Amino acid sequence: MPSPHQPPPAPLHTDDLRVHGAQVIEWIAHYLETVEERPVRSRVEPGDVAAMLPLAAPEEAEDFAAILSDLDRIVTPGVTHWQSPNFFGYFPANASVPAILGELVSAGLGVQGMLWSTSPACTEIETRMLDWLGSAIGLPVSFLSHSENGGGVIQGTASEAVMIAMVAARYRAKQRAMEQGMTLRDIRDSLVAYTSNQAHSSLAKAANIIGLEQDQLRLIEVDGDHAMKPDALEAAIQEDLTDGRLPFFICATVGTTSSTAIDPVEQIGAIAAAHNAWLHIDAAYVGAMLVCPEHRWMIEGVEQATSFNFNPHKWLLTNFDCSALWTTDRSSLIDSLSVTPEYLRNQASDTGAVIDYRDWQAPLGRRFRALKLWFVMRRFGLAGLRAHIREHLRLAEMFENWVQDDDRFELSAKRTAGLICFRAKGTDELNRTLLDRVNDSGELFMTHTSLPHDGADHFILRFAIGAAMTREEHVRKAWDTLCCTLKKQHA
Amino acid sequence: MPSPHQPPPAPLHTDDLRVHGAQVIEWIAHYLETVEERPVRSRVEPGDVAAMLPLAAPEEAEDFAAILSDLDRIVTPGVTHWQSPNFFGYFPANASVPAILGELVSAGLGVQGMLWSTSPACTEIETRMLDWLGSAIGLPVSFLSHSENGGGVIQGTASEAVMIAMVAARYRAKQRAMEQGMTLRDIRDSLVAYTSNQAHSSLAKAANIIGLEQDQLRLIEVDGDHAMKPDALEAAIQEDLTDGRLPFFICATVGTTSSTAIDPVEQIGAIAAAHNAWLHIDAAYVGAMLVCPEHRWMIEGVEQATSFNFNPHKWLLTNFDCSALWTTDRSSLIDSLSVTPEYLRNQASDTGAVIDYRDWQAPLGRRFRALKLWFVMRRFGLAGLRAHIREHLRLAEMFENWVQDDDRFELSAKRTAGLICFRAKGTDELNRTLLDRVNDSGELFMTHTSLPHDGADHFILRFAIGAAMTREEHVRKAWDTLCCTLKKQHA
Repeated sequence: MPSPHQPPPAPLHTDDLRVHGAQVIEWIAHYLETVEERPVRSRVEPGDVAAMLPLAAPEEAEDFAAILSDLDRIVTPGVTHWQSPNFFGYFPANASVPAILGELVSAGLGVQGMLWSTSPACTEIETRMLDWLGSAIGLPVSFLSHSENGGGVIQGTASEAVMIAMVAARYRAKQRAMEQGMTLRDIRDSLVAYTSNQAHSSLAKAANIIGLEQDQLRLIEVDGDHAMKPDALEAAIQEDLTDGRLPFFICATVGTTSSTAIDPVEQIGAIAAAHNAWLHIDAAYVGAMLVCPEHRWMIEGVEQATSFNFNPHKWLLTNFDCSALWTTDRSSLIDSLSVTPEYLRNQASDTGAVIDYRDWQAPLGRRFRALKLWFVMRRFGLAGLRAHIREHLRLAEMFENWVQDDDRFELSAKRTAGLICFRAKGTDELNRTLLDRVNDSGELFMTHTSLPHDGADHFILRFAIGAAMTREEHVRKAWDTLCCTLKKQHA
Repeated sequence: MPSPHQPPPAPLHTDDLRVHGAQVIEWIAHYLETVEERPVRSRVEPGDVAAMLPLAAPEEAEDFAAILSDLDRIVTPGVTHWQSPNFFGYFPANASVPAILGELVSAGLGVQGMLWSTSPACTEIETRMLDWLGSAIGLPVSFLSHSENGGGVIQGTASEAVMIAMVAARYRAKQRAMEQGMTLRDIRDSLVAYTSNQAHSSLAKAANIIGLEQDQLRLIEVDGDHAMKPDALEAAIQEDLTDGRLPFFICATVGTTSSTAIDPVEQIGAIAAAHNAWLHIDAAYVGAMLVCPEHRWMIEGVEQATSFNFNPHKWLLTNFDCSALWTTDRSSLIDSLSVTPEYLRNQASDTGAVIDYRDWQAPLGRRFRALKLWFVMRRFGLAGLRAHIREHLRLAEMFENWVQDDDRFELSAKRTAGLICFRAKGTDELNRTLLDRVNDSGELFMTHTSLPHDGADHFILRFAIGAAMTREEHVRKAWDTLCCTLKKQHA
C-alpha cells in the first residue's frame, strides 16, 4: 500500500535516525532470534521476489514503516539464511554484533579513506589492525607495517587480493626483465603464473582480467590429498624456462575450496625463491584458524611468500566484506597501482610519510572497514576468537567421526578444518538426490563439489561448520536429518 | 584503561545488539548533530592516531563501553568530516538515514549474494533497483533488465565499473578479431582504448590492471571547455587503423573530475559506432543530476553507448559504496567474466533462468547493497531526490555569481553541476596559500586541481556543493571565510 504523500525528510534527520534506527535494530534482533526456525535455503522461484516490487520508483516519499514491513514480506522469504545455525553450505560468512555495529559506525561517519588525508584514522587504524591480525595469526614481521617493505590492507574479497597480487608480481617481473633488455610486449607474452588444479576459480578470473591468455596460467596437478605436487610445479617451470617463458607468479592454496587441501608452502616457497617468482598464499578460509598456534604448521615456510591473504569475513566473526592482504613487497604493489592526478595530490602524500591505501587496491574509494576488525578483536579478544574456532573444530571432528563410524557413508577427503567432505556410499545420483532432499527440507543447507575418487570425479557433499550461531545441537540435528533422509531414499 | 577480564560474548547475542545498537545509533545521531562544529579537515599529524592504539590485539574480551568511548577519543579527531555541511572537497559522498539503515539491514542479514541461489532477493531487488534508477535518470530501455541484452549491476566504485567494461570490451573485440583470423597475442598487442586527457585517473589504472601497455591508452585532447574533441578522437583512430591497430574501447566522461566538463556523447557515440568500439560513459558524479529531466541534454546520444556508470554514493544520498553500472551487452560482460567450478554450480544457474551477479563483477562475493538504493528511492521518492539535487544546484549558481561579481576572483571553468572551479586573481602561490589557510581554519574544506588557463596549467580551487546537510547558510559562511582569508593575505 502506498503511504499518503508527505514531504521527503531531511537526508540526515537525526530524529529519524533515532526512531527508525531503533526499529531496524529491533528488526535485526528479532530476525536473528527466529532465523533458526526458517527454511535455510530460500524457497522462492526465479522471479518471485521481482514480482512483488513495483516496476518503477515511487514519485513521492514513503513512510519508513512501509519500507520496514516489506523486509518481512519481500526480503526474508527471498534470502538464504547465511546466519542460520543450520547453514553448512560453501564456507561460512560470519557476522557478529561488534562487526555489525562497526559497519554501522562506518556508514554513519560516511568517510571515504582513499588517501591518508581524507581521513587519517581510516588509514592508521587499518594499518594497525592488520598488524594486530598479522601478529595474531603468526605472520613473520616482514609482513607487518613496521618492517622495511611490508604491510597489510583490507580488500573486498580474496578475488581482488589475488588479482592485485598478480598485478604487482607482473610489474616486478617486468622491471627485472626490462633490465635484461626484453621488450614490454615480449615480456607480456612470456609471463606464466602457476597454481594447483584445486585452486579457487578466482585465480582463473584474475588471470583473465589482468590480460593473461589461458596458456599463461598453468594448473599444476595435485597429490591424493588434493595438494599441489611441488615436483610437478618444478617440472612445469623447467619446461617453461626451456621454452623461454617467464615464470612470475605462484599461488599456493592453504585450504582449497573443494576440500581444504593444504599446499606444501615450504617446498613451494623454495621453488618460488629459486626462480624469483612472487609467491601468493591464498588462505581465504583456513587463515582464521591460525589465531590458534596449534594450526600454524599449515603455513610453515610462509616467510618465503610475497603476499598472504585470508578472509576475516568467512570464519572470524567479521561480516562481509573484509579480506586481509599482507605483502612483504609493498613498493611493487604501490608502484604497480599508483596513478596520481593533480586533484588527488596533497601535502601529506607528497612527503611520503603516510600510506595512501588507494595505491594498495584496484578501486580509488574505500570505506572505513577497519572499524569492524577493531570492534571484533577488542570485543572478543584473541582468546575469544580462538575459542570460537576451536569449538567449531570440535564439532567438525565429531561430525567426521559420525561419518567414519557409519557404514552408509564414507569420507571423501582428509579433514583439516571445519569442512567435512563425504558421501553416501553408492552412486553420484544417490548423493545428488540426498543433497536436494536435505536442502528442500529447510532443516539445513549444504553444498557439493567434485573430487577425484577411485580414478574418476565424483559428486561429493560439503558440510562446512562455521556459522556464528552453530552449536552442537545444530550439528546433531543436521546429522539426524541426513541419516533419516538417506534411510527414506533407501526404503 | 583495559576493562576487567570477562568471558567473550556470544557472537550474535541479541541483547548486546539491542543495548549496544541503541548506544551506537545515539552516538551517530550525536556525531551528526555536532559535526558542523568540528574542524572539517582532521588536524592530526601522521602517526598521531596510530600512537593511540596498542601495538597488539587484546588477549581478553573488552567491554563495549571501552570501544565506544574510543570513538570519541581516537576516531573522530582523526577523520575528515565528509558529512559536515562545510565539506566542499573532491566530490561529495552523501549519506542519509535510509541509506545508513539499509547498510545496517544488509550487515544484520549477513547474506552473500554471489549467486541468485545464495539469496534470490539480493539479486532480484538489485536488478529491479537498477531498472528503477536507470528509468529515473532517463536511460533507454536497452540498458534495462527487460531488454534483449541489457541490465544493471551495483559495483563498488566507478574504477571497478570502467575496469570490467574494458574487460568485456576486450573480450568482444577479441571474438571479432579471431573470426577474422588474428591470433590472440596479435590482438592483445593491437588493442587501443581512448579517453580524454581530462578523464579520471581510474582509466589509466584500469588499463594498467587489465594489462594494456601505456601506448594502448590514448588520451585525446580537449577543447576550451575541457571536453573531448571528437575530431581529435577520429584522427587518432584513423592513425591507429592505418598502423594496423584495433580501436576497441572509448570512454566518454560526462562530468570530469577536474571541472565537470561534458564530453559530446552524441558525436563520440557516432565514432564508436562507426568503428565498432565499445563506448563506456563515465558519469560518476553528474549522473545523479539526471533524475531531473532538465539535465538530460548531457547524455544525448547515450543510446549508442554499450555501458553507462554513475555513483549514487556521490550525490544521491546513498552512502559509499554504491556505483551503478548498466550495459546493453550483458552477454559480453558475462562471457568475459564467468568461470564456473563445480562447487558454485546449482540448479537455478544451470537453467539460465536467473542472474548470477558474480559474473557481472571482478570479485566473487557481494553484499546486499541494493537495500540501500531501495530504502533511499522509497524514503525520498524521485521528487525528493530531484529537490535535493536542485537545491544544491541553486546554491552552486549562487556561489558562481558571487565569484563572477567579485573583482578579486575569477571563474576557471564553465559550471555544469555543483562544482565551481575558480581562483583568486594572481599567482598559483597565492591560491595555494589561500587553500591551505582556509582548510587550516577548520571552517570549511575544499580541494584543488590543475587546469589550463591562458596557455599554461594553473592551480585552480574546487568548491563542490553536495554534502547531504549543506544549506545556504553554509555556502554563505564558506564564501565569507574565503573572502576574509584572502583579504588578510593581501593585507
